[in-house]
Amino acid sequence: MITLAVVQFTPEHNTLDANLASIESAIRTIDAHIIVLPELATTGYFYREPAELDGLAMTSADERLQHLLRVASEHQRVVVFGFAERDGSKLFNSAMVGGYGTAQAVYRKTHLFYREKDVFQPGDSGFFVTPIPHLDCNLGTMICYDWRFPESARTLALRGADVIAAPSNLVTELWPKVMPSRAAENKVYLAVANRVGTETNAGGSVEFNGMSTIYNYNGEILSRVTNDVDHYVVITAEIDPPATRKKSFNAYNDIFADRRPELYE
Amino acid sequence: MITLAVVQFTPEHNTLDANLASIESAIRTIDAHIIVLPELATTGYFYREPAELDGLAMTSADERLQHLLRVASEHQRVVVFGFAERDGSKLFNSAMVGGYGTAQAVYRKTHLFYREKDVFQPGDSGFFVTPIPHLDCNLGTMICYDWRFPESARTLALRGADVIAAPSNLVTELWPKVMPSRAAENKVYLAVANRVGTETNAGGSVEFNGMSTIYNYNGEILSRVTNDVDHYVVITAEIDPPATRKKSFNAYNDIFADRRPELYE
Repeated sequence: MITLAVVQFTPEHNTLDANLASIESAIRTIDAHIIVLPELATTGYFYREPAELDGLAMTSADERLQHLLRVASEHQRVVVFGFAERDGSKLFNSAMVGGYGTAQAVYRKTHLFYREKDVFQPGDSGFFVTPIPHLDCNLGTMICYDWRFPESARTLALRGADVIAAPSNLVTELWPKVMPSRAAENKVYLAVANRVGTETNAGGSVEFNGMSTIYNYNGEILSRVTNDVDHYVVITAEIDPPATRKKSFNAYNDIFADRRPELYE
Repeated sequence: MITLAVVQFTPEHNTLDANLASIESAIRTIDAHIIVLPELATTGYFYREPAELDGLAMTSADERLQHLLRVASEHQRVVVFGFAERDGSKLFNSAMVGGYGTAQAVYRKTHLFYREKDVFQPGDSGFFVTPIPHLDCNLGTMICYDWRFPESARTLALRGADVIAAPSNLVTELWPKVMPSRAAENKVYLAVANRVGTETNAGGSVEFNGMSTIYNYNGEILSRVTNDVDHYVVITAEIDPPATRKKSFNAYNDIFADRRPELYE
């Protein structure tokens, strides 16, 4: 069994240093093997055009991000957190995956939500799994609105994910109803790190609805944030990643072997 | 708006005439545009080898099935019901779709559950949609364990289904948790016609858990059987099939147009 932690915190909008400090503090203080933080944890969420991210978006090689990964390694933690990524002239809504005993990887959000389309490029990393050998855990990552597409979690699970980390800035009423299915239909753990708070920008405001949750592989809630007032809350759960790999449930049926992709659109 | 009905009834095992009479009675008496009945409604569920279906399995052209479709047409109903289908030496766990104002079609269950694999061939019809022009409704069909695979409902929705009929003989605790997602993630109505009762056969028994449900396209329950004692219960709901076709929910997002199949496994 290993310990999985989710941090629900409210990044400060339009700034960087305070958020990097919050992420570093979480890494230093939370006693867990894997720590998942929200989408765009370094910058806050609501931007209207790429220029607004000047000075906020970073390349994945940025020393400030590498510092966070080194701190994670020193504390023997794996960490997943969202950041605004710059790659040449392009911006991506990305998640950094790295830390102790695993290679650094960057997931670029596949499905962009709402005005993110005015700011970011559609992700080109695809869905991939990061092995964490010393934990015997294969970690997949998706971001927020990716949940809306069953193909996201499905692709991660088919590629071997035992656990899906989902840095998020969720706003809808629908996700708490459907998210359990993403775990159950694939028999994987799922860690949704959401945020609370409201962000305003020219033309509107966005309110995030918290309820960050760790689901087991039956889609049951192992731990959920019930306090959506405070702006920094940690939940943890003990999980058994290898238990997700037996996809059969009787002598005849296996939810992966029973698939018939030739008949799927 | 049209009326969709689900019949939860307990087919008699190892017989045909009583079940055909029950189906005919439902068609004659239920005032609805579309009537969905359970899986293997003509025969009951639990068979261990093909020979047990001698005299029970029928070709889709069988006069007794054609009679049911004629009755449906006369009463201006569309009907979907499960039957054991014989095609030469092969048996399929199938659903008949037909009746008033629509072509007859036979769906052959794609994903076989448990000992069905000892009796039936995996379905070769694929997932298809049956247009019902006078109702402005496109009807997709899946059977029972197909629900376990998000690809089933997804394929039907991508092929244009507004409503998914799901003749079922469900037994698990998991389906009521995940089934709403099949409607919501695709924005389609979903009619699950389950059964109650227990069937025993050499080597075991199977208990079915009722709770037949009509879901709206947000995955909310429009109507559900709460009486799982009686062996014949009808639920209905008013539905608006064309309302499912607008898959956008803001100026930026459309749950179908946002898909990126090139990145899916």
